[in-house]
Amino acid sequence: MDKQQLVDFYKQIRGLTLELCAPLPQEAFRIQPMADVSPPWWNLGHTSWFFARNILHQHNAYNELDKRYDYVLNSYYETFGARISREDRGKLCFPTTSEMFSYRESVDHRMLELINQTSDLEKLFPLVFIGLQHEQQHQELLITEVKNILGYNPPHLQKPYCEAGDETSVSCDLTFIPLDGGLFEFGNVEGGWCWDNELGVHKYYLDDFAIGNRLITNGEYLNFIEDGGYQQALLWLADGWGACKESHWDSPLYWQKIDDEFYEWTLSGMRKIRKNEPVCHVSFYEANAFAEWKAVTEKKKLRLPTEREWEHAARTTKATKQTQNFADSKLFHPCSASSTQELQQMYGSLWEWTSNHYEPYPRFTTLQGALAEYNGKFMNNQRVLRGGSCATPMNHIRISYRNFWAATTRFQFTGIRLVEDLS
Amino acid sequence: MDKQQLVDFYKQIRGLTLELCAPLPQEAFRIQPMADVSPPWWNLGHTSWFFARNILHQHNAYNELDKRYDYVLNSYYETFGARISREDRGKLCFPTTSEMFSYRESVDHRMLELINQTSDLEKLFPLVFIGLQHEQQHQELLITEVKNILGYNPPHLQKPYCEAGDETSVSCDLTFIPLDGGLFEFGNVEGGWCWDNELGVHKYYLDDFAIGNRLITNGEYLNFIEDGGYQQALLWLADGWGACKESHWDSPLYWQKIDDEFYEWTLSGMRKIRKNEPVCHVSFYEANAFAEWKAVTEKKKLRLPTEREWEHAARTTKATKQTQNFADSKLFHPCSASSTQELQQMYGSLWEWTSNHYEPYPRFTTLQGALAEYNGKFMNNQRVLRGGSCATPMNHIRISYRNFWAATTRFQFTGIRLVEDLS
Amino acid sequence: MDKQQLVDFYKQIRGLTLELCAPLPQEAFRIQPMADVSPPWWNLGHTSWFFARNILHQHNAYNELDKRYDYVLNSYYETFGARISREDRGKLCFPTTSEMFSYRESVDHRMLELINQTSDLEKLFPLVFIGLQHEQQHQELLITEVKNILGYNPPHLQKPYCEAGDETSVSCDLTFIPLDGGLFEFGNVEGGWCWDNELGVHKYYLDDFAIGNRLITNGEYLNFIEDGGYQQALLWLADGWGACKESHWDSPLYWQKIDDEFYEWTLSGMRKIRKNEPVCHVSFYEANAFAEWKAVTEKKKLRLPTEREWEHAARTTKATKQTQNFADSKLFHPCSASSTQELQQMYGSLWEWTSNHYEPYPRFTTLQGALAEYNGKFMNNQRVLRGGSCATPMNHIRISYRNFWAATTRFQFTGIRLVEDLS
Amino acid sequence: MDKQQLVDFYKQIRGLTLELCAPLPQEAFRIQPMADVSPPWWNLGHTSWFFARNILHQHNAYNELDKRYDYVLNSYYETFGARISREDRGKLCFPTTSEMFSYRESVDHRMLELINQTSDLEKLFPLVFIGLQHEQQHQELLITEVKNILGYNPPHLQKPYCEAGDETSVSCDLTFIPLDGGLFEFGNVEGGWCWDNELGVHKYYLDDFAIGNRLITNGEYLNFIEDGGYQQALLWLADGWGACKESHWDSPLYWQKIDDEFYEWTLSGMRKIRKNEPVCHVSFYEANAFAEWKAVTEKKKLRLPTEREWEHAARTTKATKQTQNFADSKLFHPCSASSTQELQQMYGSLWEWTSNHYEPYPRFTTLQGALAEYNGKFMNNQRVLRGGSCATPMNHIRISYRNFWAATTRFQFTGIRLVEDLS
Repeated sequence: MDKQQLVDFYKQIRGLTLELCAPLPQEAFRIQPMADVSPPWWNLGHTSWFFARNILHQHNAYNELDKRYDYVLNSYYETFGARISREDRGKLCFPTTSEMFSYRESVDHRMLELINQTSDLEKLFPLVFIGLQHEQQHQELLITEVKNILGYNPPHLQKPYCEAGDETSVSCDLTFIPLDGGLFEFGNVEGGWCWDNELGVHKYYLDDFAIGNRLITNGEYLNFIEDGGYQQALLWLADGWGACKESHWDSPLYWQKIDDEFYEWTLSGMRKIRKNEPVCHVSFYEANAFAEWKAVTEKKKLRLPTEREWEHAARTTKATKQTQNFADSKLFHPCSASSTQELQQMYGSLWEWTSNHYEPYPRFTTLQGALAEYNGKFMNNQRVLRGGSCATPMNHIRISYRNFWAATTRFQFTGIRLVEDLS
Repeated sequence: MDKQQLVDFYKQIRGLTLELCAPLPQEAFRIQPMADVSPPWWNLGHTSWFFARNILHQHNAYNELDKRYDYVLNSYYETFGARISREDRGKLCFPTTSEMFSYRESVDHRMLELINQTSDLEKLFPLVFIGLQHEQQHQELLITEVKNILGYNPPHLQKPYCEAGDETSVSCDLTFIPLDGGLFEFGNVEGGWCWDNELGVHKYYLDDFAIGNRLITNGEYLNFIEDGGYQQALLWLADGWGACKESHWDSPLYWQKIDDEFYEWTLSGMRKIRKNEPVCHVSFYEANAFAEWKAVTEKKKLRLPTEREWEHAARTTKATKQTQNFADSKLFHPCSASSTQELQQMYGSLWEWTSNHYEPYPRFTTLQGALAEYNGKFMNNQRVLRGGSCATPMNHIRISYRNFWAATTRFQFTGIRLVEDLS
Repeated sequence: MDKQQLVDFYKQIRGLTLELCAPLPQEAFRIQPMADVSPPWWNLGHTSWFFARNILHQHNAYNELDKRYDYVLNSYYETFGARISREDRGKLCFPTTSEMFSYRESVDHRMLELINQTSDLEKLFPLVFIGLQHEQQHQELLITEVKNILGYNPPHLQKPYCEAGDETSVSCDLTFIPLDGGLFEFGNVEGGWCWDNELGVHKYYLDDFAIGNRLITNGEYLNFIEDGGYQQALLWLADGWGACKESHWDSPLYWQKIDDEFYEWTLSGMRKIRKNEPVCHVSFYEANAFAEWKAVTEKKKLRLPTEREWEHAARTTKATKQTQNFADSKLFHPCSASSTQELQQMYGSLWEWTSNHYEPYPRFTTLQGALAEYNGKFMNNQRVLRGGSCATPMNHIRISYRNFWAATTRFQFTGIRLVEDLS
Repeated sequence: MDKQQLVDFYKQIRGLTLELCAPLPQEAFRIQPMADVSPPWWNLGHTSWFFARNILHQHNAYNELDKRYDYVLNSYYETFGARISREDRGKLCFPTTSEMFSYRESVDHRMLELINQTSDLEKLFPLVFIGLQHEQQHQELLITEVKNILGYNPPHLQKPYCEAGDETSVSCDLTFIPLDGGLFEFGNVEGGWCWDNELGVHKYYLDDFAIGNRLITNGEYLNFIEDGGYQQALLWLADGWGACKESHWDSPLYWQKIDDEFYEWTLSGMRKIRKNEPVCHVSFYEANAFAEWKAVTEKKKLRLPTEREWEHAARTTKATKQTQNFADSKLFHPCSASSTQELQQMYGSLWEWTSNHYEPYPRFTTLQGALAEYNGKFMNNQRVLRGGSCATPMNHIRISYRNFWAATTRFQFTGIRLVEDLS
């Protein structure tokens, strides 16, 4: 990228955050319904402070305003000192929302100035690029947080965030596409920029397996529910069963039974479940219990894919991002599969739970400086997800991209794909 | 009161609530830093819904809007069905703040119409009056909630709510005014309107005692702190000591030590402690430990007053409200005593902790209908406070008025007065 | 008392504790099913250490063994330094149970030596007497703890502690005996030894009232249950309703429904509810809700008595202890009333919840030294109970005796008596 | 094995459990200091019930006693119905300890009869063998639970469980032994009986690495402590840092600082830390933080081994169990390394934390029937440990053996071995 391209890229990505905030009522900016869901004002501020603290600071452009916000906008960087607890972000009324918008402007102004004036773009570029990747991750978070914030209100008071897309109603048989095993390379094989957690590129041996041609649908998940899936302990991991009972799970997050029919809260409002759409907002535990149930019911060796099986399938089949349902389509809701038997929905629509805990790849090394805290310290008791979702900007994702969440997480756009053991 | 007087009274009181909200930033309306502190939008809505549900409903003027808000604006009335949990009020972004202002207008419009059109003012009046008393209680709550909401922010981001009053710096000796014991009447002896908890009027025998001429000051409380009051278990009630250690209390709420000097958050901003001002925002446990410490230190039989000792002192000395520091003065902060040895500060400035748990008076009967839940069901494990504070509207209070809070409460304008046993 | 009488009294009371422990299996000595229920080894040790620390210590007879046990046998005396948390007593296997029995012997040996050798019995007596009163309180505790410990086991594994008494099956109408109001004296009016909390003797004015001739029965309480008492929020104090729902109360502690019939765990084993026996093991909240329900159902001004109403009734009617059901009868279960309409069951069988929080009487002063912590520091958020129970030694109780427990307490022998307002 | 060999094997293993219990005071059998530590009576009963429920039940030899204990002795088998909560085992006094010993006898009698009478040893053998492997796992648990139970008492009341071994005081340099990478087989490659979690045997590619010749010592860990290891957030996983601060960790479990010197509780009593002994009772989080600290301090790519690196090193070097410190040596404490630079301490002394979460191997299938719950349902948010410890029976362990505990676990005999990246 040359300077102008970087400026354009910067403006485009930073601008999208503002665009995503535009439909929000003032009130929504301050709300934190649960610890994991930061109020949007914080998202606006934190992403700006991230540029300020990691870039402007090194170029002596870190001003009074930045320092003023150090305490409230630092997410989790021990390197940068004391900070407000995550669960308290929704308890602040200062800085105000308009102060956060002003702060964004201040940061953007200084950042663009810096880019324009730098004589060492090569050195500046990687940091700016990381800042923008970070911003994109927070765009996805913002969408899922907005869904949670608006959805937390009593149903009769809820207001939608966006227009609904057209209903897509094609039905598609679930089939399994066989793939040969062998010793393959994994991680950022394709090269280009990537997060530290996608390296080192390493060899890994896969047995033969077959991968589900599409995501599991609401209809299939309804069968699981109706067959007592939420009442059968033996389908669940022990901790999962504990979570299920303690949290009184009996359907995916945002589902609600009204007059014996299931509705779901979407960013376009509450509406009836559509059976052909992929099931969404399930925890890893639910995904795993569903896989177990399906295996028992169909007497097949069905299970969730490992992250390397997913990656190998995506790489081998040259799955394409281009036509998929990302944040760019502004539907913010997963789409149904088409009727084809080919491998589809690998990208976009929903993050796919894999069966792997989030661990470092061989020869993993963290980013330098404060960014060493970006990924490595979270490699513990989380599960990897792959493929991006309807809330992910398309140009943010790639084959080797690793997302990760705790097994109990349901507010992200998460879905289920199965694989079958062949040997 | 005739119709016009009631209309004027209604407008005056309802108007004050809006006036109190005027200085608030939009953000503050949605914030709930702890379960006890409702966000101001809720206060605005709930006080309006109270009129709607208890009065308009009986006159067929309960409209769609009222029903729409039943779930979120019901505080604790089991009679009125399901409602949002208190601690979740700050998690809603709907209804919006402007919808709450509109709702107030709608209720006011209908209420004034009802008053103007009624042919039975005698029947309507008591209910309207209760609604306005209820509104005044929420005005006091609003002020203390605003103090907590604004004060919750990191000090360098805090913004004041109002102008500070002039510093009052007279020092006044603490003396004790003796009063003769005997069999006296208590409760709403003066007659006129009162809450159910101020009845029945009943006889009670008091021993001789002497009452402190003024409230305990910051200076005196500093002596308690510096003498290790927060480290000596033997000064405290067992539960109080538990609360003190668990919550890491080492000074009143809103106090903060900077460079070895105490500052306090006030509604006019952060400022140095003023030694002659009454100590404020102490829990019952702290008040009681202070009394114990003072008794030990001075080798006198000092303690907190019973609620009937307080009432008898106020009644006997004909303590006057008129010149006291109520919400009407718009200082929202307690004032220093004058130098006189007479009994002062009985009204206004700070609620005074008494040594009594909140219990029903002899022949107590609750209000009728839903309002039966107003006071009676809370007569458990709370302590009585007397006298009103700088956040209480002056015309809301009277000699027999009983306020009550849990012994751990610190966010209210609470202070300390001592008495001495004489027999 | 002369020396020999004191020695005999000492031996009799200390001996009873051993007698109460005799039927226990070794295992039971170490069990603590909940924080409030100390394991019996601790009870044995603590009561002995109480003599050692408060008496032998002053006479230079505090030996190595005593010091060794300071940390584990101190209940709550801040004066005596660090100690194990109450809820951890059941986590210790040292000191062993037999070490505790030996320790008792060691203390008894030294105490009897001290009594025999003292030249100042007048000075020694009061402390020994307090130690024995303390022992008696722990005898009652021991019985209620044993009931809880044995009762905690799965029903099919439970074993009884003692033989059952004969079933008493007389039915007795509930009537109310009127008493004139007036200004009376309260507290230890009769003189003789008493706890600090029974002083000062003070005047108090009572209105006319009528007192229930007997305790409320299981049969009457069943009516409350069957009429939905546990489902009607409006009958309950707000905190009580919270406790009821959170703890899933639907009947008294130790009741269990089997094949549509209620059984209760008693110290003689599990057996069917007997309708004429007084209802037992109810919290203050349940007692209060029952009173409210009875008042509504019978359209009378029924309620729990105040502690002074109870005391006045006992004093006026010269209620007698002699024939009542105390620990001395070794039934350890409440007895039915006789058929008489006179005031009965005032003593023994069950502690009676009063409507008063536990507060100091006028001119209350604590005991001296460490014993200052005995009563005063617990005068907070507890309710007073009167009259003793089937687990109280008869010579331990008197008219002015004040017991106190938190409103949620159910493992003590607690029951219900009602009064009626007459004015 | 023929019948007689199975009978001997059965008697030997079941007998060892009794032997391990012999030194315990009666009290210790009932104590549960934390949820993870079951009281020994339960261990005795559960291991017996395991034979009864899984074997005798299938041969119609499941008697009244077995049914009676179903509720209390079922650990976590949903298949076998309702059961007491794990954390409540220490709250029972029935069944008594002697009833548990009798129950063991009853089960043993029936088991031996069954073995002697069976005409189908081939079918019976695998189940008996699993029962005995299960018993051995509980022998290790028993030793670690006893350490915790005895160690929970205040230091001056603690009593040791066994004699101490001689102090071993050789010092041994920490060196790293290089191993070539490549595609290797993992899991139960050697064949013979194994748990389901050691299958399927599968290929896995390893990069070159070097493995530490011995376990990390107390002396090395002291350096970590003294260098502020417990105060530097950047050394820790995010959750680990949270656990460290919340639980106030500042040294391994059972360490205690007295007069500026560290002591540790061992099964032979409290004694000074020996610097050459391997550090013990550290959580995964501490092990990982130590590795990070060592890597930073020494500027090498040091880290914990993956479980396959450990297994490959053990397999390649033909590490031997025979001379190692297992439960069989009855020391119940880890031994120091010898001075050799060869790979040592791979077996026995301490379980070694690996960097892997516990996940199924490729083509994993659970055991049949109720035993399907044995391993699979726990494959979530736990870390794998390898090699056995001083509490493991020697004939219980093998190269492919996978132990697993939560990352916070410290009461097991856990230690640290490091590896170094070579590529």
